[in-house]
Amino acid sequence: MSKAETENPPAESATGPAHPLELSEETLREMVEGATERIVEHLRTLPEQPLSYTEGGAELARSLREDLPESGQPYSELLELVFERCLSLTYNTASPGYLAFIPGGGLPHAAVADLIADTVNRYVGVFVAAPGLVQLEVNVTRWFCQMVGYPETARGLLTTGGSLANFTALYTARRERLPDNFLKGILYCSDQVHHSIMKAAMLAGFPEGNIRVVPSDEHCRMQLDALKEQIESDRESDLQPFLVVGSAGTVNTGAIDDLVALADLAAEQELWFHVDGAYGGFFVLTERGRERFEGLDRADSISLDPHKGLFLPYGTGCLVVRDDAALKRAHHVAAAYMPPLQDDLEQIDFSESSPELSRDFRGLRVWLPLKMHGVGVFRQALAEKLDLAQWACDELSQIDGIEIVAEPQLSIVAFRLTRPGSSEAELEVLNRDLQQRINDKQHVFLTSTNLDGRYVIRICVLSFRTHLDRMEQCLEDIRQAVQEISEDTYSS
Amino acid sequence: MSKAETENPPAESATGPAHPLELSEETLREMVEGATERIVEHLRTLPEQPLSYTEGGAELARSLREDLPESGQPYSELLELVFERCLSLTYNTASPGYLAFIPGGGLPHAAVADLIADTVNRYVGVFVAAPGLVQLEVNVTRWFCQMVGYPETARGLLTTGGSLANFTALYTARRERLPDNFLKGILYCSDQVHHSIMKAAMLAGFPEGNIRVVPSDEHCRMQLDALKEQIESDRESDLQPFLVVGSAGTVNTGAIDDLVALADLAAEQELWFHVDGAYGGFFVLTERGRERFEGLDRADSISLDPHKGLFLPYGTGCLVVRDDAALKRAHHVAAAYMPPLQDDLEQIDFSESSPELSRDFRGLRVWLPLKMHGVGVFRQALAEKLDLAQWACDELSQIDGIEIVAEPQLSIVAFRLTRPGSSEAELEVLNRDLQQRINDKQHVFLTSTNLDGRYVIRICVLSFRTHLDRMEQCLEDIRQAVQEISEDTYSS
Repeated sequence: MSKAETENPPAESATGPAHPLELSEETLREMVEGATERIVEHLRTLPEQPLSYTEGGAELARSLREDLPESGQPYSELLELVFERCLSLTYNTASPGYLAFIPGGGLPHAAVADLIADTVNRYVGVFVAAPGLVQLEVNVTRWFCQMVGYPETARGLLTTGGSLANFTALYTARRERLPDNFLKGILYCSDQVHHSIMKAAMLAGFPEGNIRVVPSDEHCRMQLDALKEQIESDRESDLQPFLVVGSAGTVNTGAIDDLVALADLAAEQELWFHVDGAYGGFFVLTERGRERFEGLDRADSISLDPHKGLFLPYGTGCLVVRDDAALKRAHHVAAAYMPPLQDDLEQIDFSESSPELSRDFRGLRVWLPLKMHGVGVFRQALAEKLDLAQWACDELSQIDGIEIVAEPQLSIVAFRLTRPGSSEAELEVLNRDLQQRINDKQHVFLTSTNLDGRYVIRICVLSFRTHLDRMEQCLEDIRQAVQEISEDTYSS
Repeated sequence: MSKAETENPPAESATGPAHPLELSEETLREMVEGATERIVEHLRTLPEQPLSYTEGGAELARSLREDLPESGQPYSELLELVFERCLSLTYNTASPGYLAFIPGGGLPHAAVADLIADTVNRYVGVFVAAPGLVQLEVNVTRWFCQMVGYPETARGLLTTGGSLANFTALYTARRERLPDNFLKGILYCSDQVHHSIMKAAMLAGFPEGNIRVVPSDEHCRMQLDALKEQIESDRESDLQPFLVVGSAGTVNTGAIDDLVALADLAAEQELWFHVDGAYGGFFVLTERGRERFEGLDRADSISLDPHKGLFLPYGTGCLVVRDDAALKRAHHVAAAYMPPLQDDLEQIDFSESSPELSRDFRGLRVWLPLKMHGVGVFRQALAEKLDLAQWACDELSQIDGIEIVAEPQLSIVAFRLTRPGSSEAELEVLNRDLQQRINDKQHVFLTSTNLDGRYVIRICVLSFRTHLDRMEQCLEDIRQAVQEISEDTYSS
C-alpha cells in the first residue's frame, strides 16, 4: 500500500512541517496515479459495463449517509467507495450504448484540462486577472460565434449547461425589449420546446401565463400560422409580445423549426429571436446541419451545449448573443472592490456579461480537445451520428410491427411497436414492455417520451463512443425483444 | 518526446482502429502525466512566483487570438502555451501571498476529484441516474446545513459560486412571498452588501428602484433603525417589503451584521431573511465564528462559498435553504422526456430544486478533501486565518502613520496611511502609491476598496497556503513601503 493511501502526509517546507491541507509532491502524484489507474480501468471496461443498473439505489444511498467526519479517511478507501460502490449502480451515461435522453460521453481531454485548471486555480471572470487564459476562453466562444455565422460584434459565454444559457438569453431579451414593467411581456415557443425555457421564463420573472405554447405540426415543428394568430390576438389584448424561441433540434425528436420563417416573423414583429440549440446546435458544423439550420445566424441568441454536441463532460454549456452590448447592458453592476474592468471588444470581462462573478475556468476544457484534434474530427464525428440515426431508422422500418413516429431530422429517431386495434393505453403497456426488454439486455439504454399522447421510444445517438457496431447490437436487441413479445403473445 | 506529444494516436478496439477522439490508455496516461509534471513544478515554485504580473496582458491576449483550427496540434505544445505563456502573466490567486479580493487557494484534492468526475461523467441532476454519487453530494450539502444549525427539513445546493447562490435565494424568496405581481416587492440590504445581490435582484425581475440600500454604521454593519424606518415608509407607500439580506462577513471588511436583530425584525415584519455568507460563512466552523454569527441559524437561506472558506478551486458555491419545500415549489417544471423523479426527502433530485438541469458533478470535489482530512483540519485552518488577520492588525497599528480603518471582524483588515492636513483626494494618491510599492515587491498582493469615501487598502487572509511566515513578509513590505514614501517626502 502506498504512502498516500495510509497517511496523507503533509508537505514539508523550509520553515518546518507544512499545513496538513498542503499535499506533498509525493502525495499529489500518488493521488493522481491512483485516480488514473481507476479511470483507465473504468474506461477499458466501459463497453461491457451495464447500462442502467439502478436496482437498490435507495438502499445504497441510505447506506452512504453519514455525519460530517471530524477526522480523515485514507484516500484509497474513498476511491474504492466511488468506483466500486457508487459507479456500478448508475445510468451509464459514458457508455457507447447510452442512447437515452441526450447522451453524455465526456471526452477525457476535459478531465485533464480540469486537473490543470483546478490546480492552478486562476480567476477568469475579469480580463486583467488572467489575460492569456481569458483569451483562450474568448477564442473558444468566438469559434462558436463563427460556427453559427455571427458577426464580429457577437459574444459567447460558457455556462454550466443549457438551462443557464436559456435563462441568460431570456433575461437579456427582457432587459433589452421590456426595460420597465415586463409583466405584460409574452413569449412564444412550441409544445416541443425544452422545459428549461419554461423554467428560464419563471426565473426571469414571467408569470407562467405569459408563456404561449404554440402547437407543432406532424414533424414536431412549430406551426407558424398558429404562432401568428396568437401574436395578433395578444397584441389586441394589449399584451407585449417580445420573444420567440425556435428549436435547432428538440430533445424529444431532434425536430428543427423553420428558422428562416421564424427569423422573418421575429423581424416583422420586432421580437427577440432565441434559438435553443443545446442538443442540436453543433450539427451546424456538418453540411447537413448547416443546410437544415438555415436562418440560425439571424437569431439574436443561441444556446449550445458543448457537453452534448462537442462530447464534453457535463457542466459545459454556452450562450452566443449577436449583440455583445446587449449582454453587457443587462449584466453590468459596479462595485468599489472590483478590479479594473475593460471597455474593449478585445479585452473581455466575462463577469460583466453574465450572471456569474466567480466560477470555474471552464474554457480550458473546451479549448484543449478542439486544439488537440482540430474541428475536423468533431465534424466527422457529428456526421457519423447523423448517419447512425438514419441507419437505425432504415433498419427499424424493416421490423414487422414497428412504426417510425419521428424520422431523424438530426440524430434522434422515435419509434414504437404497434398492434392493430390496440388503444393508446394498451400500446403504452406494450412499448414499456418492449423498452424494458431492450434495456434489460444491457447493451444499450433507450428512454421514452410522449408525442401527442403516444408513448414512444427514442434512440438518441450523440456519444463520441457510439459507432456502427453498437448500433448493430442495438437493432439486434430490438429485433429480439420484438420477437420475444411476439412469442409471448402466441404462447399465452 | 513521448508518443502523446507527437501523434495523439487513437485507441484500437477489437473491431478495428478506434475513433480519433478515443484516447488510447497510453495517450491518456501520458496526458495526465504531462499535466502532473507541470502542476507539481507549478506548485513547487508557487511561493516564489510573482503575485500580480499583468503588464503586457493585452498584447499577450492579442497574440493568442486565432481562428478555429481545422486540424490538431501536439499536446505538449498546448501544455507549454498554458503554463509558460498564459500562467506567468496573471493575478496569482493560488499563491500564499495572495491577500487580495477574496483569496482563491484551490485545494489540489479537488483537481483529482474533477479528473475522476469528468472522466466517468455521470449525471447527478436526478437521483435515479446515480443514487450513490448523488448521495455523496447530498452528504456534503447536509453537512453544510448542519454547520449553520439548520433542521432536517433544510436543503443545500451546490452552485458555481456566490452569485448564483444569491440569485437562487432571491428567486425562491420571490416565489414564496410574492407569488403574483412582485413589482412592488421591496428588498433591503446594507451599503456594504456584495453587488451580486443587486445583480441577483435584477436577474430575478426586480427593478433597481426596489432595492433599498440601508446605510451602515462605523463598523460597516447595517443600521437597524434606518432599516426599520425604511420598511415602515415603504409599507405606508403601499409597497411590499419581502426580503432582507444580512451579511455574515462583507467583502469589503468582513463586517458581520447583527444577525439576531435582523432575524427578529424579519420575523416581526414577515420578511424572508437571507444571509450572504459567501466570504465568511464557513467561519461558523470556528468557535469565534459561531459566536459572532449568532442568529445565522434563523435565516431562511444562506449563501456559502466552498471555493472561499473551504479553500476549494473557483466554481464551488452553495446555497442552503431552511425549507426544502420552498426550493422545490420554486423550481419544479414537468417534462415527458425526464427520468422518474422522487418525492422523498432522502432521494434528492437536484434539478428539481435548482435552476440547473445538466451540470457538472461538483459534489465530489467538496466531498473528497472533507473526507480525506475530516473537518477538524479545516476548522484549524480557518481559526489560523482569524489569528493572522488579528496579528496583522496589531502589527499595522504600530506603524507610524497607519490608521486601521476596519479592525478584523473575521479575516480582513482595512487600513490606510494618513498624513495630517491631507484631503481625501491626496490620501487616495498617497495610498495608491503605498499599495503599488507593496505589490511591486511581489511577495503579497493587496487590493483596495472605498469605505465611506476613503480609499483603503485591504488585507484578506483566506488561502490555506497563507501562514505566519508570509504575513511577516507582508508586514515587512508594508513597513518598508511606508519608509520609502517617508524618505521620498523628505528628499523632495
